[in-house]
Amino acid sequence: MQIAVLLFDRFTALDAVGPYEVLAHLPGAHLVFVGERPGPVRTEVGSLALTADAALSEVDNPDVVVVPGGPGQRHHMGEGPIRDWLRAVDITSTWTASVCTGSLLLAAAGLLTGRRATTHWLAHDQLAPLGTVPVAQRVVTDGKYITASGVSAGIDMAFTLAGRIAGDAVAQAIQLAHEYDPQPPYQAGSPERAPREVLAAVRSRKDFILSRG
Amino acid sequence: MQIAVLLFDRFTALDAVGPYEVLAHLPGAHLVFVGERPGPVRTEVGSLALTADAALSEVDNPDVVVVPGGPGQRHHMGEGPIRDWLRAVDITSTWTASVCTGSLLLAAAGLLTGRRATTHWLAHDQLAPLGTVPVAQRVVTDGKYITASGVSAGIDMAFTLAGRIAGDAVAQAIQLAHEYDPQPPYQAGSPERAPREVLAAVRSRKDFILSRG
Repeated sequence: MQIAVLLFDRFTALDAVGPYEVLAHLPGAHLVFVGERPGPVRTEVGSLALTADAALSEVDNPDVVVVPGGPGQRHHMGEGPIRDWLRAVDITSTWTASVCTGSLLLAAAGLLTGRRATTHWLAHDQLAPLGTVPVAQRVVTDGKYITASGVSAGIDMAFTLAGRIAGDAVAQAIQLAHEYDPQPPYQAGSPERAPREVLAAVRSRKDFILSRG
Repeated sequence: MQIAVLLFDRFTALDAVGPYEVLAHLPGAHLVFVGERPGPVRTEVGSLALTADAALSEVDNPDVVVVPGGPGQRHHMGEGPIRDWLRAVDITSTWTASVCTGSLLLAAAGLLTGRRATTHWLAHDQLAPLGTVPVAQRVVTDGKYITASGVSAGIDMAFTLAGRIAGDAVAQAIQLAHEYDPQPPYQAGSPERAPREVLAAVRSRKDFILSRG
């Protein structure tokens, strides 16, 4: 089972590494990080690069596709090699998954038309214009498409996907091995739960957060 | 504020990327990934490499040090450049942090002697022989030392640290921007909560999980 994780300049690291950390431990899984060209690909912060071990053309038949989000996503919404690749691999994939604004890439490629999907809460209003039915939920499954909300939601998405692929016991064993028993020291992780002034502060930086200038 | 994240061969990616994703967004923070030599450093899974942008010798005065765990950790428990570096940078660091079995590296370097600390639940029995007071808690703070339990606990550790460094409002804003409102689809993330047969299965693979053979 080949699982391809897409990388592009100015992606968000945890969007990709959260799912990798879960899915790489599925029995028989072979993960591959893929980019427009092999080599280091920088996150939007700039101080971290992950290595793309394969070019898009080298990965033409993955079983599972994982698409992260991040500010660089907006440069691949139109025609181009990433859109072409997403359309091509989706034809034969068993699962096509996204995290955060990665779902906007899938939607822009026409893969989520009429389907239920989610994305980062700050980008939710971008789903409907792309023909997608927006759902304000942490993880949304519609057929073989599974989309996660912002950044850290990719971990919850991956455990859901792990259970669907390999069964509950395998997913639970991976969860225990990764000690995924979250205990956030603050309860500010959603617009509903965040203190009002924190919500206002983050909203006021919406453009910066989504595009990093 | 320079924040150095240590990389070594066969580290666990989420141990490093979880804290990076939080701490990189602190105002004024400059993250740097550091390794024995600059270049790609592979995780224990092998299908992912993160780039070390600096050699140990180039980062001699970080404000915050973050030490991930992973199977490769056991090769740095004795004399060597990583132990030397940990001891040297700890002299002037404001915070020295670890995730998962990263605390065993700190303990082996003599930095946690007599201090309260935690690690991955499967490695907890290794703390006391290294002179550390083991605490079965997700995040443990003792002076400037902050240690996290297994893998995903680094995210909770980093939010705790973010609050201590920059205040609650900043930490909460980062939490909201990362939509860190975990909703695991399974409740198997700790030995206490996991189904008995899942716990037994993971325990039986303890050596593999900690050392990957």
